[in-house]
Amino acid sequence: MRYELYYWPGIQGRGELVRLALEAGGAEYVDVARLPPRQGGGMRALTRVLAAHAAGERPPFALPALRAGRRLIGQTANILAYLGPRLGLVPRAEADRLWVHQLQLTLADFIAETHDTHHPVALSLYYEDQRAEALRRALDFRSHRLGKFLGYFEGVLARAGHGWVVGRRPSYADLSLFQVIAGLRYAFPHAMADCAGRTRRLAELHDRVCALPRVRAYLASPRRLPFSEADIWRRYPELDG
Amino acid sequence: MRYELYYWPGIQGRGELVRLALEAGGAEYVDVARLPPRQGGGMRALTRVLAAHAAGERPPFALPALRAGRRLIGQTANILAYLGPRLGLVPRAEADRLWVHQLQLTLADFIAETHDTHHPVALSLYYEDQRAEALRRALDFRSHRLGKFLGYFEGVLARAGHGWVVGRRPSYADLSLFQVIAGLRYAFPHAMADCAGRTRRLAELHDRVCALPRVRAYLASPRRLPFSEADIWRRYPELDG
Repeated sequence: MRYELYYWPGIQGRGELVRLALEAGGAEYVDVARLPPRQGGGMRALTRVLAAHAAGERPPFALPALRAGRRLIGQTANILAYLGPRLGLVPRAEADRLWVHQLQLTLADFIAETHDTHHPVALSLYYEDQRAEALRRALDFRSHRLGKFLGYFEGVLARAGHGWVVGRRPSYADLSLFQVIAGLRYAFPHAMADCAGRTRRLAELHDRVCALPRVRAYLASPRRLPFSEADIWRRYPELDG
Repeated sequence: MRYELYYWPGIQGRGELVRLALEAGGAEYVDVARLPPRQGGGMRALTRVLAAHAAGERPPFALPALRAGRRLIGQTANILAYLGPRLGLVPRAEADRLWVHQLQLTLADFIAETHDTHHPVALSLYYEDQRAEALRRALDFRSHRLGKFLGYFEGVLARAGHGWVVGRRPSYADLSLFQVIAGLRYAFPHAMADCAGRTRRLAELHDRVCALPRVRAYLASPRRLPFSEADIWRRYPELDG
């Protein structure tokens, strides 16, 4: 199966969780909006396909979306639940699959709260137009939410016992957890340094994912976009305390 | 299977999406925190079980959680993905199940954005302590997000063609969509009245779910809690424009 990923070409965003799964799983895929226009890619290809699907039977509400054969699948965690068994990124037992999905949905909540530190009022406004609110929200995030989420996932790894969230192999939730840690280190270097003593297993998981041969090759390639201030994880020093 | 629902006893909240599925699916279940203490219920039972699970292998990050045999399953959409096939609330084909789950995750995003209209800064603060920010956020929600989400689901129903989001029978996403519409009508009566002309199919779906015999019996029972200002959907007239 040759997959097609539909996502904004300039950012990691939520699409990065799908990219990491496709890369770590060794899937054949095209990142449509990042292809040159002469190869059928670019923003025009993205908007053309989305417009066609908006008129079709089952359009996604937002990106990322993954085309697999004739299907176009939306919602990041749903895409990963689809890819997981196909790419060997989830165990076979139903109980394990539910658990990995539960962790993925908790990561989705964590990511949404992280995003809202710089956009607490409106997606439709610039950061600069909601900076006062962002300062309050980021203070609460650093004080109450960051440690709570990190502590939860540190505990998950401690109980699982083999360096991954379930079993002895990486799942798509491990890949997403890597991305969340990398993003938080970029956006909140001080707050993350303060947590370092209580998040050793998360740091080890981050390094373990980086060392997976396919992930290492991906991260060193031009396919991996850099973090930026147009993305979910933004480095605004005033929000890092 | 006798299920146990773990959720805060005084509110509908996200637990209501699970309650509606259990009720509509005719499941045998106990709403643990709402049982009298002499029957093993109440808040003490809730916190005792959560503390035991926090020390266990796979604790949920937050409520609701559903006990099914020896498992405790967390994350609302994940619980519904588990219950759906068991309660006849999702079609058999994988493509249909992915689609229903995709819609459920989009409803989860809609619910989170609705909640944040009155809590844009911090869960840990009262509404009154973030009222200025809430006024800005609610204005953006009414102006940009409410119509976008409602229009999306109206389109889903239009294309599906049989009054449900998929096929000719109600799925768990239909039940959640009913709850979202009911909640929004409670919280934003003016904004919802302004949308009425463009959301006829959603209004019909709301009434169709209400008319399901098990749902009708549930809504008329004391098991159905009222909407309130301690919940996700709150009626603060100043946020309704």
